[in-house]
Amino acid sequence: MAKSQEHSPLDKPHSAAVRLGRWLPTGHWLRCYPREHLVGDVLAGFIVAVMLVPQGMAYALLAGLPPEVGLYASILPLLVYGLLGSSRTLAVGPVAIVSLLVATGITPLAEVGSAAYVQLAITLALLVGVIQALMGVVRLGFLVNFLSHPVLAGFTTAAALVIGFSQLKHLLGIGIPNLEFFELLPYAVTHLAETNWVTFALGGGGILILVYFKQVLGGQLRRWGIWPQWILPITKSAPLVIVVLGTVLVWSLQLHERFGVAIVGQVPDGLPPLTLPLMDMGVWRQLLPTAVVISFVGYMESIAVAKSLASKRRQKVNANQELLALGAANLGAMLTGGYPVTGGLSRSVVNFEAGANSGLASMITAVLIALTVIFLTPVFYFLPQASLAAIVIVAVAGLIDVKTFRHVWRYNKADAASFVVTFVAVLLVGVENGILLGVAAAMLLFIWRSSRPHVAVVGRLGSSEVYRNVLRHQVQCWPNVVAVRIDESLYFANSKFLEDTVLGLVADQPEVDHFVLIGTAVNFIDASALETLESLARQLKDAGVQLHLAAIKGPVMDRLRDIGFVAHLGEPYFHLTTHDAMKAIGVVKE
Amino acid sequence: MAKSQEHSPLDKPHSAAVRLGRWLPTGHWLRCYPREHLVGDVLAGFIVAVMLVPQGMAYALLAGLPPEVGLYASILPLLVYGLLGSSRTLAVGPVAIVSLLVATGITPLAEVGSAAYVQLAITLALLVGVIQALMGVVRLGFLVNFLSHPVLAGFTTAAALVIGFSQLKHLLGIGIPNLEFFELLPYAVTHLAETNWVTFALGGGGILILVYFKQVLGGQLRRWGIWPQWILPITKSAPLVIVVLGTVLVWSLQLHERFGVAIVGQVPDGLPPLTLPLMDMGVWRQLLPTAVVISFVGYMESIAVAKSLASKRRQKVNANQELLALGAANLGAMLTGGYPVTGGLSRSVVNFEAGANSGLASMITAVLIALTVIFLTPVFYFLPQASLAAIVIVAVAGLIDVKTFRHVWRYNKADAASFVVTFVAVLLVGVENGILLGVAAAMLLFIWRSSRPHVAVVGRLGSSEVYRNVLRHQVQCWPNVVAVRIDESLYFANSKFLEDTVLGLVADQPEVDHFVLIGTAVNFIDASALETLESLARQLKDAGVQLHLAAIKGPVMDRLRDIGFVAHLGEPYFHLTTHDAMKAIGVVKE
Repeated sequence: MAKSQEHSPLDKPHSAAVRLGRWLPTGHWLRCYPREHLVGDVLAGFIVAVMLVPQGMAYALLAGLPPEVGLYASILPLLVYGLLGSSRTLAVGPVAIVSLLVATGITPLAEVGSAAYVQLAITLALLVGVIQALMGVVRLGFLVNFLSHPVLAGFTTAAALVIGFSQLKHLLGIGIPNLEFFELLPYAVTHLAETNWVTFALGGGGILILVYFKQVLGGQLRRWGIWPQWILPITKSAPLVIVVLGTVLVWSLQLHERFGVAIVGQVPDGLPPLTLPLMDMGVWRQLLPTAVVISFVGYMESIAVAKSLASKRRQKVNANQELLALGAANLGAMLTGGYPVTGGLSRSVVNFEAGANSGLASMITAVLIALTVIFLTPVFYFLPQASLAAIVIVAVAGLIDVKTFRHVWRYNKADAASFVVTFVAVLLVGVENGILLGVAAAMLLFIWRSSRPHVAVVGRLGSSEVYRNVLRHQVQCWPNVVAVRIDESLYFANSKFLEDTVLGLVADQPEVDHFVLIGTAVNFIDASALETLESLARQLKDAGVQLHLAAIKGPVMDRLRDIGFVAHLGEPYFHLTTHDAMKAIGVVKE
Repeated sequence: MAKSQEHSPLDKPHSAAVRLGRWLPTGHWLRCYPREHLVGDVLAGFIVAVMLVPQGMAYALLAGLPPEVGLYASILPLLVYGLLGSSRTLAVGPVAIVSLLVATGITPLAEVGSAAYVQLAITLALLVGVIQALMGVVRLGFLVNFLSHPVLAGFTTAAALVIGFSQLKHLLGIGIPNLEFFELLPYAVTHLAETNWVTFALGGGGILILVYFKQVLGGQLRRWGIWPQWILPITKSAPLVIVVLGTVLVWSLQLHERFGVAIVGQVPDGLPPLTLPLMDMGVWRQLLPTAVVISFVGYMESIAVAKSLASKRRQKVNANQELLALGAANLGAMLTGGYPVTGGLSRSVVNFEAGANSGLASMITAVLIALTVIFLTPVFYFLPQASLAAIVIVAVAGLIDVKTFRHVWRYNKADAASFVVTFVAVLLVGVENGILLGVAAAMLLFIWRSSRPHVAVVGRLGSSEVYRNVLRHQVQCWPNVVAVRIDESLYFANSKFLEDTVLGLVADQPEVDHFVLIGTAVNFIDASALETLESLARQLKDAGVQLHLAAIKGPVMDRLRDIGFVAHLGEPYFHLTTHDAMKAIGVVKE
């Protein structure tokens, strides 16, 4: 991968930046910032800010928080990530799924929208930050691999549905109580008559505009011969467009007073205050499960998009450095009245496509958002909540991942099953327990698979030293010998299978007096399987059959020798290869 | 195993018994009962009854039930098991660990000793019976293999400690409230002054007598030249001895009135009434977790002892038939005022050693216990509870399994870890959640292991077609080729490991332009690993390296072909053997 490596620390040092760089990840962009990167970074920073202002407020609302919290979470965290992150194009900030997890975790502990609720969100940012940073320091980044792709896809798809339906109340202007997923739709349908049609027109119109910008406008602009560099900024300004449009409509027609359209209302202006989390072990313990899930899911979403973008430009992303950077970004959110953040998929793609070359783009975004909270918050007073709901709904619709399910279904039913289990569990028992169930199901399915391994009775191929499956090849066998290859490590979950298989084969072939177990695919024998092997050897001996072990791998053999099993069965019954075993038994000569 | 098979159904048919036998397991003992078996069966049935009367009452007390429930659970269940069981020597009835699980599961739902409590125990027997019978019918016996030996040993050891300490209150005559394990000892110590010394003398004396009978008496009798057949009955009558002794002492000295020694009191006489469980879905749902754990643990204990005894006489035990028989026995317990039963370890060993040849021994035991509840219950009035506590304590002391821990510690640290996790979890979070945690830990450790598989960079051995680990053998390598064997199936938990390993090896060897991944130990590739392979192929290509796959197993190759990966990477880059790959790359000629 020499070709895709970062600048080496020996590349033209740049005085002060170098000294700072010592404390930052190796090969960081600050060391030697090339001027030609500036245009791309500024443009990307600007476009992402335009997306992030409405998204930040919308996701904060989704999390049950006041809209300004979403903006606060888009300032310091972005500066910190820009400085520390190993991805050059990841756009950090509030994202839909983390916002949903925040809402799920905090709602039972405080009233939505209350000061205590905000305090809990800040505390959650602390916990997530500490967990992610610690995982980075002790290099636990690999742990996220226990979240398999199908589980993550099933989780995301179900979470997108949960989020989408949670916005129904804003879209229809109906007061919907806190309901389970499957109770929500029936409730909404039975209360459809209460719909505030003006609100619905604003929200539904917003959705149409967003979809038009996303699906149609780009092609039109290209056909109309618009300068290509302008197409991305225009299409990605859709959230801004509906926010402006919604605000202007409400303000000019006084829709909030005349028709009771729900609006954002007073948003405090000025930079976020310095905030501190709750220092209460009891609260921490209550928030811990949520914090763990957010840490994993947030990191997983982040690293996946960071990696895929980096590989397009042959750059590298360092998993543990990413954890550190995300952790630090969350601690930044904690200090400035924010809530947990992570790298967002769509935002990062926009950042990348708009030409972001370094963390500077993130920093420019942060500065623009800071200017927004200083100067523009009075403008948001008349912003209808339905417009924000429309933004959330269109954003999460893109997360529904039917393609992965179809692919996985074709390839491997166990993977498909873990997708389905996660999907259904998230809808039935909630996002947090749902993903935990999904992870457990994926592991169980893996263990289930290895508990019924592939077994091949083998015979000699011609006069070679090669022994192959009797069902797939024309091979030579002997009535008094059974030779079997088990294609799996031997451990507790398949030790009974091993016993049944061996005893069954011996029972089927009454003339047998030698049984050869071939270990080419046995990477490991645990204590339960060892006990089974001991009992097998005894049972076979009782039935007049000698057990042989052939082609046991070095490390496995060392273990068996240490524990005394080699001496117990007898050294002469261990053979380097299957062929050696056959020679020792005497059925083949050379 | 032809030699150890049961009587074939064609062996001398015995009229009526044959007709009945059609409904019973193949080759059942009833078909042709040889007369010479009778003496052993009668003797064994008698000795087990002598053990079971006090044990049954003691375990019922441990379960928080009136003593007669333990006796009731020792009549019909034994008849049923004797008829249906595939083991000839298993002695079914109340056992310590199941009794503990019953207590743990029911105590939160009803007051100990109340009629509702007994009803719940009966309902639990229904659920356990149905679960076990269903598992037998749909052949889920293999499921218990997910309970590894170290987990079971850790569980048993911790449960023995919990049970032993739970008897402190009876042994000392102190009223101890329902406490966590770690609070119990401090509480008992601080309340030691309240000890009822007469009670303690009865209990402590009982323990001494039991230990003496168990450890010393057998040798003495042999030295004294006692007829060997008499030694077992005498040593195994210890529980009866202390029960008789305790009863006589209390009665003759009126210890219960003069010193407040707790006695068993009124035990209803006559055969158990016909009982029916609670038919309440809500209750069933509450009891279900406990019932599942009892079903598994009970079956596990049972099948282990049944198998080990059967193999000593070269008989066979059928796992699914055992589940059916145990399930039926539990349904029997449910109908006759009992509580969940299973095959007991020590009792079965005594049954076996006393010469039991068939289920007739169990039936004789059942008849003797029935006679006891009809005629002898008034005798139990003065039986001190401390004597029963002594029986429980000595019985569970034998379950503490340090040997397995030591063995497993030497052999495999992951197994030792799952022993320790289960042991600690049972003590900290309780028996039920403890064993579930242990099972989860064992699975996680297995997955953890396979997430960091053994990897060997290989080279050519001399001028052979054999490629071996460069670290273990003198082999030939080429600067532009890396060939690697990964000794594990590729799946979500190790897909990142795979990626890091491959990219790391390529980065270390800048001249490389062919990477050969050898699949001899890859039994399976899941969707996550497939995605990783696709991304690896792309990343390697970007770096100017061609990925080759060699020696992929047939079933795995079929999958890769179906999903289009073979076409994606290119058919020419798949090779039957490592040697073929090297020939295709051109570094070897023939």
